[in-house]
This record gives sequence, structure tokens and C-alpha cells, in this order.
Amino acid sequence: MIGIFDSGLGGLTVLRAVRHALPEVSLCYLGDTARLPYGSRSPELVYRFTVEGVGELLRRGCPLVVVACNTASALALRRLQQEWLPAHFPNTRVLGVIRPVVEHAAVVSRRGRIGVVGTAGTVASGAYPRELTAAAKAAGRQWRDGLQVFTAAAPLLVPLVEEGWVHRPETLRILRRYLAPLRAKRVDTLVLGCTHYPMLLREFRQVMGRQVRVFDPAEIVAGSLADYLQRHPEIASRLDRAAATRYLVTDISETFARMASRWLGASVPLERVELAGALPLLGKEG
Amino acid sequence: MIGIFDSGLGGLTVLRAVRHALPEVSLCYLGDTARLPYGSRSPELVYRFTVEGVGELLRRGCPLVVVACNTASALALRRLQQEWLPAHFPNTRVLGVIRPVVEHAAVVSRRGRIGVVGTAGTVASGAYPRELTAAAKAAGRQWRDGLQVFTAAAPLLVPLVEEGWVHRPETLRILRRYLAPLRAKRVDTLVLGCTHYPMLLREFRQVMGRQVRVFDPAEIVAGSLADYLQRHPEIASRLDRAAATRYLVTDISETFARMASRWLGASVPLERVELAGALPLLGKEG
Repeated sequence: MIGIFDSGLGGLTVLRAVRHALPEVSLCYLGDTARLPYGSRSPELVYRFTVEGVGELLRRGCPLVVVACNTASALALRRLQQEWLPAHFPNTRVLGVIRPVVEHAAVVSRRGRIGVVGTAGTVASGAYPRELTAAAKAAGRQWRDGLQVFTAAAPLLVPLVEEGWVHRPETLRILRRYLAPLRAKRVDTLVLGCTHYPMLLREFRQVMGRQVRVFDPAEIVAGSLADYLQRHPEIASRLDRAAATRYLVTDISETFARMASRWLGASVPLERVELAGALPLLGKEG
Repeated sequence: MIGIFDSGLGGLTVLRAVRHALPEVSLCYLGDTARLPYGSRSPELVYRFTVEGVGELLRRGCPLVVVACNTASALALRRLQQEWLPAHFPNTRVLGVIRPVVEHAAVVSRRGRIGVVGTAGTVASGAYPRELTAAAKAAGRQWRDGLQVFTAAAPLLVPLVEEGWVHRPETLRILRRYLAPLRAKRVDTLVLGCTHYPMLLREFRQVMGRQVRVFDPAEIVAGSLADYLQRHPEIASRLDRAAATRYLVTDISETFARMASRWLGASVPLERVELAGALPLLGKEG
């Protein structure tokens, strides 16, 4: 099965898209609902939480794990792939959500003016500008004024989505405030750098206007994953095709249960897991 | 020293008021910034996190700990006081923030129509209506229509305060929406059931209007604490009077550091602590 790790429920947007793209592959979702949100935590802590969550999915037999959380992808993925994974789980793969999304943005951007909106941690990491630069180069894209990336942190959007205030005027006002600097920079493409944001896709498009491309990152990630499996039969052959989905979470609260049934459309069996066991791998100071 | 435990930074409103009320007593603050917010987590998890945080302060020698977080006070305090404390730290005291606040509200309410606003967890716990009923009885208060308590969960207020959006029109609009049901019930007193909310005291008063009493719970808690020490010299005599303050946190992120200096007025030395050690006390399933 493919593991999908997220700080909470936002990654369900990715799960849903992967389910569409790969309907027969079994999936195992893990949301760290006991410790969400990751967006305002230190890089060191995000690394540690991510190792614990990804480690749990690998221990359960996933040969491939997608880190659906942008903050975790931005702050933890590279170090996890380079230092931790080879030592503890060789012959497995851990992929993030930033690479496929920036590759898509680099292809579709008309004037090379790309806006990125995400959590405080994601924006502070500088991961998107760095990866966009690499992706534009790899794609051979050249724009008259070169690539220009503008970022905006939008910490309130996750709580707004989790509160279910998706189509409310308050949310639209807050979105306008966050996006005003990016509109002023006349970006031609807006990258939604957080798995919660596709829930606000219509609002993002409304605020940015028709001239700006705003795409659903979950669909891009799912398409890229299907493509990856085509190119890596040694991983694809290890996936079972029972079309099963498991939902693991580190805490089940009323808030969470309500949100899960809203996001998933139907109630699903949630299993609570304990992640503390992975801690010693990192030593006392993480 | 007196320990002050909070899920994050909201409890600094309590620390500030305690510092005013007891200027010479040394204080040790502990904010669980690695795992905040507690407001939407399950009661079981809040209990576990609270035991770990309070346990840390007790181990460091505090004979008295104030649980400044309303969610923790509502969901964990009673069980902690009854089951855990006597077994692990006899001869120490752990106090919450709900009791003193409801006692004050029961005294000042003119018509017995009391509104309470707090996190989802605090509201779901039913702690405020229960404690208000007990406090009104203890104070011998009787109103023509009896005591009527109306609660409202306001999950977005904590993120708004943490984002620093205190005096913004968006915040006022959201506050109006949350408080509309309480205004419709014509409450005469509003209890701010979360340590972050005193940061919005002016806005709460503006929305509720002059007829409604809205008091700062941190000041009430601090006054009640001073009073408690008068009545308990066996605890008061064990407090050192060096007027020192320590700030412990479980994570130091950029967001946190920015917020801490804003809330504290000046930058203070923050010390990072690890709470995982207390886990085995609770067994694997918390």
C-alpha cells in the first residue's frame, strides 16, 4: 500500500486525488491530529514529527510514502531522504508534494511571475523559491524578466478551513488581505502551498481573478505519483491492489470526527495510533 | 516558586497578572508550544499533555502549580487532582482557572444570565455551566429566573490572537458572529473562557455593549491566588521570594519568538524543555 502522511486532515485532498488516479492501489493515511498544526513549529520539531509519522507508515509495510503536508515537505523531507531513510528503511521511497507542484507551475507560468501562499513555516523555509528555480531550469523555461517568485504566509487559512468557514464572507475578506501583496506584484500563477487550500480553490480564483492560473495541487501530486509508479516498476510491483483505504490518526476528538466526515463525505473507521515509539531514533534533543 | 502551566502563550496573561499581585514570588512558566492548541483535542489527550506539563513543574520543585489553560482546566484538572497528584506528588497543590472566574461571575451577575465563550473542548466539557451552578449555590445567589448559562465555542479567536490580528476589522466581524447567539440571549455577564481572550478585551466589550459585564479573567485568577496563599501558609512558606521568572517552552519557533516578545513587551530568555519523560506514568494508551 501507499502511505500518505499529513500533519492532520489537509492531506485528505491528496488522498482523494490519489484514489482517483490509482483506484486499485491500497492506501494508508496517517494524520498527526494530536500535534497539528505543523505550520508554526520549529524546523527541528517538524523534522522529528515527520520522521515519527513516516516511520510508522514504513514499519507497517508501505514501500512508498507521500508526505502530503507542505510544511513537512519544506522543512523535513530532504534531510529525511538523505540522512534517516537510507539508514533505517533502505529500498523504500518517500516523496513530497512540492517538487511535482513547482514543476507544473514552471511549465504553465506565462511570464515567470509566480506567487506562493503557504504556512509561516513553509514560507520561511524558502523551499518554494528554491525548487521553482530548479524546476524552471530543468524545464528550460526562460522569461523576459527571468523567474520572479513572491511568497505570502497565511496562517489563518488552515483554522478557517478546519472550522468549516469555507464559503463565508469573513474568509473571503481574510483571503483578500493575504493575497493583496501577490496581486500587487501581478503574479500570473498562484501556487497553493498547503494541502488545506484546495478546499478554498473557488475563493482563491475569485480573489486572484481570471488572468491568474490557480490549480489544484492535489491533482498534480496524484498525477505525478501515477507517473512515478510507471517509471519505477520495482516499487509499483510491491503495492497491493485491494483498493483498500485505512485511516490512522494520533488523536480522535469531536472536532476531528466532525471534520473527517465532512471532508470524506461519509464516516470512515478511524484507527488511533501512538507515534512516541519512534522518538528514541532521534536522541533526546531531536 | 509558583508554576504556571499553559498549552502555549495564552497563559502569559495569567503570569502577568500574578506578577502584579505577588511581585516578590518567583514564577516558572511552562508553555507546551510543541503541541498547542489543546482546544480541539480529545479529553484523553488533553489529560495526558496536562499531566506531563504539570509533572515537569512539580519535578522542578514548584509546591503550587496553576493550570492557566482553560481547556486543560476543564478537561483534565479534576482527574489530575483526584487520581494522579496524590499518587505522584503529595503535599503539592494544582489549581485551575475556572473556579475563581465562575465564583466572580456568580457574584457580579445581575440577572443570572451568564454567557461563556471558549474553545470547542472547553465548551463541550460542560465545565463552566457545572461550576457556575455550584458557585451560585455556594454564594447563595438567587435570581428571578434562576441561573441560565449560555455557551459559545469560538475556535478562530486563538489563531487570530496568535497571528496578531487583534485590532483588525476582520477580527471584530468574526467576534460579532461568534457572540451573536449570546447577545440574542441577552446575557448580563460574559465569561472569557480562554487565556488568549483578554488580548481582545476591548473588542469583546465593544461587541457586547455597555450593559454586559466583561471582566479580565487573568486578574481574577491572580487575586484568587494571592488570597489562596493567605489562607494556606503551609504552601506560601515554601515559595521563594527572589522575584525571578523563568520561561520554559517545548518548542521555540520563529512564530513563537515573535509572539513572545510582543506579549511580554521585551525579549526574555526562553528555555526549551522535553516533556516526553512523563509519558510512562500514564501507560501506553494514555
